[in-house]
Amino acid sequence: MKVAVLGATGFTGEKIVEILVSHPEAEIVYLASRTPKATPYSSIFPRFLNKADINCETLNKEKATDLSDVVFLALPHTVSMQMVPFFLKKKKKVIDLSADYRLTSASEYKKYYKKAHRDKSNLKKAVYGLPELFEKKIRNASLIANPGCYPTSVIIPLYPLLKEIAGLKDIIVDSKSSITGAGRKALIEYHYSNISGNIWAYKPFNHQHMPEIESILRRVTAKSPNICFVPHVAGIEAGIYSTIYLRLQPGFKYKEKDFKTIYRKYYSASPFVRIKDELPVLKDVVGSNFCDIGFRIDSQKKTAVVACAIDNLFKGAAGTAVQNMNIIFGRNQTLGLV
Amino acid sequence: MKVAVLGATGFTGEKIVEILVSHPEAEIVYLASRTPKATPYSSIFPRFLNKADINCETLNKEKATDLSDVVFLALPHTVSMQMVPFFLKKKKKVIDLSADYRLTSASEYKKYYKKAHRDKSNLKKAVYGLPELFEKKIRNASLIANPGCYPTSVIIPLYPLLKEIAGLKDIIVDSKSSITGAGRKALIEYHYSNISGNIWAYKPFNHQHMPEIESILRRVTAKSPNICFVPHVAGIEAGIYSTIYLRLQPGFKYKEKDFKTIYRKYYSASPFVRIKDELPVLKDVVGSNFCDIGFRIDSQKKTAVVACAIDNLFKGAAGTAVQNMNIIFGRNQTLGLV
Amino acid sequence: MKVAVLGATGFTGEKIVEILVSHPEAEIVYLASRTPKATPYSSIFPRFLNKADINCETLNKEKATDLSDVVFLALPHTVSMQMVPFFLKKKKKVIDLSADYRLTSASEYKKYYKKAHRDKSNLKKAVYGLPELFEKKIRNASLIANPGCYPTSVIIPLYPLLKEIAGLKDIIVDSKSSITGAGRKALIEYHYSNISGNIWAYKPFNHQHMPEIESILRRVTAKSPNICFVPHVAGIEAGIYSTIYLRLQPGFKYKEKDFKTIYRKYYSASPFVRIKDELPVLKDVVGSNFCDIGFRIDSQKKTAVVACAIDNLFKGAAGTAVQNMNIIFGRNQTLGLV
Amino acid sequence: MKVAVLGATGFTGEKIVEILVSHPEAEIVYLASRTPKATPYSSIFPRFLNKADINCETLNKEKATDLSDVVFLALPHTVSMQMVPFFLKKKKKVIDLSADYRLTSASEYKKYYKKAHRDKSNLKKAVYGLPELFEKKIRNASLIANPGCYPTSVIIPLYPLLKEIAGLKDIIVDSKSSITGAGRKALIEYHYSNISGNIWAYKPFNHQHMPEIESILRRVTAKSPNICFVPHVAGIEAGIYSTIYLRLQPGFKYKEKDFKTIYRKYYSASPFVRIKDELPVLKDVVGSNFCDIGFRIDSQKKTAVVACAIDNLFKGAAGTAVQNMNIIFGRNQTLGLV
Repeated sequence: MKVAVLGATGFTGEKIVEILVSHPEAEIVYLASRTPKATPYSSIFPRFLNKADINCETLNKEKATDLSDVVFLALPHTVSMQMVPFFLKKKKKVIDLSADYRLTSASEYKKYYKKAHRDKSNLKKAVYGLPELFEKKIRNASLIANPGCYPTSVIIPLYPLLKEIAGLKDIIVDSKSSITGAGRKALIEYHYSNISGNIWAYKPFNHQHMPEIESILRRVTAKSPNICFVPHVAGIEAGIYSTIYLRLQPGFKYKEKDFKTIYRKYYSASPFVRIKDELPVLKDVVGSNFCDIGFRIDSQKKTAVVACAIDNLFKGAAGTAVQNMNIIFGRNQTLGLV
Repeated sequence: MKVAVLGATGFTGEKIVEILVSHPEAEIVYLASRTPKATPYSSIFPRFLNKADINCETLNKEKATDLSDVVFLALPHTVSMQMVPFFLKKKKKVIDLSADYRLTSASEYKKYYKKAHRDKSNLKKAVYGLPELFEKKIRNASLIANPGCYPTSVIIPLYPLLKEIAGLKDIIVDSKSSITGAGRKALIEYHYSNISGNIWAYKPFNHQHMPEIESILRRVTAKSPNICFVPHVAGIEAGIYSTIYLRLQPGFKYKEKDFKTIYRKYYSASPFVRIKDELPVLKDVVGSNFCDIGFRIDSQKKTAVVACAIDNLFKGAAGTAVQNMNIIFGRNQTLGLV
Repeated sequence: MKVAVLGATGFTGEKIVEILVSHPEAEIVYLASRTPKATPYSSIFPRFLNKADINCETLNKEKATDLSDVVFLALPHTVSMQMVPFFLKKKKKVIDLSADYRLTSASEYKKYYKKAHRDKSNLKKAVYGLPELFEKKIRNASLIANPGCYPTSVIIPLYPLLKEIAGLKDIIVDSKSSITGAGRKALIEYHYSNISGNIWAYKPFNHQHMPEIESILRRVTAKSPNICFVPHVAGIEAGIYSTIYLRLQPGFKYKEKDFKTIYRKYYSASPFVRIKDELPVLKDVVGSNFCDIGFRIDSQKKTAVVACAIDNLFKGAAGTAVQNMNIIFGRNQTLGLV
Repeated sequence: MKVAVLGATGFTGEKIVEILVSHPEAEIVYLASRTPKATPYSSIFPRFLNKADINCETLNKEKATDLSDVVFLALPHTVSMQMVPFFLKKKKKVIDLSADYRLTSASEYKKYYKKAHRDKSNLKKAVYGLPELFEKKIRNASLIANPGCYPTSVIIPLYPLLKEIAGLKDIIVDSKSSITGAGRKALIEYHYSNISGNIWAYKPFNHQHMPEIESILRRVTAKSPNICFVPHVAGIEAGIYSTIYLRLQPGFKYKEKDFKTIYRKYYSASPFVRIKDELPVLKDVVGSNFCDIGFRIDSQKKTAVVACAIDNLFKGAAGTAVQNMNIIFGRNQTLGLV
């Protein structure tokens, strides 16, 4: 599999490169970014010396097309949709890590990303690239809308429960994330001294990942629960820890062993989902493509808590992207990921 | 004010000493801990060299009594209640930072702290030392049950809302805390490499601070909302960030400005409570006695989120303890705390 | 003491404000920064709410003069020297925390700061504001050149040894600093993910604090040892830890107790210098104005190691600046600093 | 290659397991530790769930022998030498990560490790497992003394310079390490709050890695420079950064390009040594087996500085151990390590 990565110097692009240099059947053939002139990738990121010394260039779409079988777009939102039509026309497989093709509704896109969608025809063709839910569709997809980091940590744990259990109407999601999820930007807000040891909630109720979570869950469960999503930045190097609170209706009879049975039913063939006996611990998944899920039910409190831990740049972005590539090209989905 | 600190080498005891060495009208006259022999406090904690060179001794209750006006008990739960009767009999003011006198119900105490209460008579006399709610009672108290760290971060923001607003029945509290809240213990779980960069939820629904939160709120509001409390450890040096989710009943009409009005009504005379226009940021309170509160209401989602940030060892323990001392001795409650 | 702080939104300016709001005899009367319009300081830094709600304004030199007794310049290098003549003419006391008046040689200034010195007349009048060496001169100074952070951590430990011991010709200084020493700048290099867990050496042999260290030591000891200075950035929130290696000449006869005697001779009246029996520990000084010094001599290895720990923004900048203010205005130098 | 790991629950043992689970030609067949009864490794370290679910058992030497081709001893010092004779007698390859076979002098061993050596005959047969110096000897070794973490970061950069350049007599080594180098121990000194944000020097001149550095360099260069080694603990998750100062004799004529030439001469066939144009940055090597080296020469200061960065548990322990295994079994030394 010959791979081009566009936007190779963002956190997500860098993580894709990191994974692919150790991948036994993928080869990085083209890297592009906003760099003014071609520069060895290992000059930009010295940790890649002797591992990824290929040049990173100003984008040349023709060249990327000529060299590669698959194009990863690790580009900012609204930039991806300007690229996708070209690469699809050239019959390339496209894995887009921006948000541009995640929402099927162009109007919802405009509401949350503040720009009209310019590629509505492909919007319909895009497959939401969460292999734990859509593996079959991914196999034949040309365009993958790779999931957002928060949605990955929320949809995987919620989907089986919503599908199987009636009456889960009110759901609170309290997520804690590394600042790397916000992208590599030279902002004073992201200065070491502002992040280290800090925690704060932001964009309560109206984060742009909210409609992504709701629309995907609606699509796969045909239910529209009331989901409140409040993300937090925490002073950690990597990872997302989502704590999900389910209000239980009177007469709720499921026990923890039933939750376990439900999760097994849905994810026994998903190699990266681990159902735990205890609530998960973030560092157990950092640096890996695993998604750890644990839960507790308190019938007296009429509440269940489900916690999910992922590495935000790995399972929450680049890892799943490579997993999608493996699937599209008929490989074992774990190839290069464990 | 001549002060004795028992349990001076725990995180809480050390923070009391730190605050008192800069306090303009308090003097540390006696320090005790499990140390086998009298040792200068600044030999145990070299950062106190030239600031607190007084000896820290094996406990001698008579000596502590002879020297001091007020005794701070920074002792483990179940140890405090063996000390309190002695010091009260000696007419000393006692500020107990353990959990021993926080719950008025001895049976609830036994359930959560796994030991029968041995001092039920004083249990009734103890005043819950949260100045923001009980300043008047604190003035004349002999025995202060200093609040727990999590309860401080939950009771202060919830009390005015529960008091003023009907129908707040279902409440989720998602708290994130520094590991220092668990005490200074040589456990492999608290090793740097286990905590740094990590987050995990623990004791969901049954943390020992749960009944403290419920019983105090019940006492002051005469209401018994269903509160689900899930604490998390986060890899941060100091602080607690509690995110509180209120499920709103149909017809809920309060706006954010109404919340602000309510908070002002209750806390305009509380110098350490700051009502913010935005959700609070943890590092704004670290190293201080402030309690920052912010909120957002989403009527469509039928949910309000209230977030509260405190320094867990400061406002969550030692700072409030000193605030209580100031009140008992007729000083301005901010003395030595700003 | 009525205080104006210019450059109040940098790390150093913010630390000055932090110290002064708790200072019993100083009052902040004027704050200025590059802010486009007057804004409450506590809106810029919400942690100062209820503590420093005074406006921070675009600089108005006349206003600063009218209101204040003393002006702190927490400005970038080369900016201070444009301000100093004005305030001195207005008979204000000036404490300059930039490097502009630290080097007495204008040509050396140009070499290291890449700009010609524009205020050579005041350059001669400036007193180097290290109270541990120059307290008497500071008392009558109008213009204080407040020491650099690295120089503070090197000059204090080296001065007595160089003065008393012959033959200390070759000296290595390996310093480790928090990134806050580089100023509050929106650079990708200072992004949390670049600093956390990282260490690297930079500007070996030619850091701009090098000539400051050499010229001050030359002035006070009349010796010119060969000092190699290699600073490092370390992923820590605060502090500098300087490890100093002294090559000992054959026949060197000093023992560790002699070092202790020497340090006592020079610093017994310096309240912030603590001579330790062990090598110092950085966190013992973080958040304080202390300077901790420890040492070991190995005669077989012909080397002595002296380590010095300070808080880079406190004793390394704002704390010493306030100490200088106290001295100039005849107060106890520890006022507001312990 | 069938591998047994003894001491599998220490930091080093855990890192060996982490590397081997992704190694394409190695299989973990036996794990032992002080665990009282056989427990799945992934129950002890949940991050290994689905990756290393093999049991970790109380040591059974016969069983380890029957199952494995090679035995990794990640045991405490003085414990390894009680095991080695048994496994060598059974014709197993032994890679010992303790210090027991690193010093060829039994008396020096006793001096620094406080216990008489009990296996002097094998002490002579052990090969010091630093592939960058001893690859040929490693190929035929039965017993590998895997290098210490600090020595790795000092010997690799110093060896070529000492070999090629005359008169390097006085050398200062200032090393900064993650606390993980001290082993996984439940000590209050290793509590998160003691390490985070902290730096301190320890064991100046007499750390037990000192004689290892000196004896190996003496052996390969036939020179005995005066090396002063001062290690520091820094609040970082992983890594060692060693800054090495070389005092240059009058007439020293080497330039930086000469250093580069020398390093190329010695390490062009060493895939994990990277000679940099700049001083190295610690995070460039964290999580990898690379050893990054950079340098600067200042002839006026008569000093050269050479800095070396490694991951202390990877290149400083487990990574080199696996590299040694690869070499012994005739594989490419990078197998499973990039």
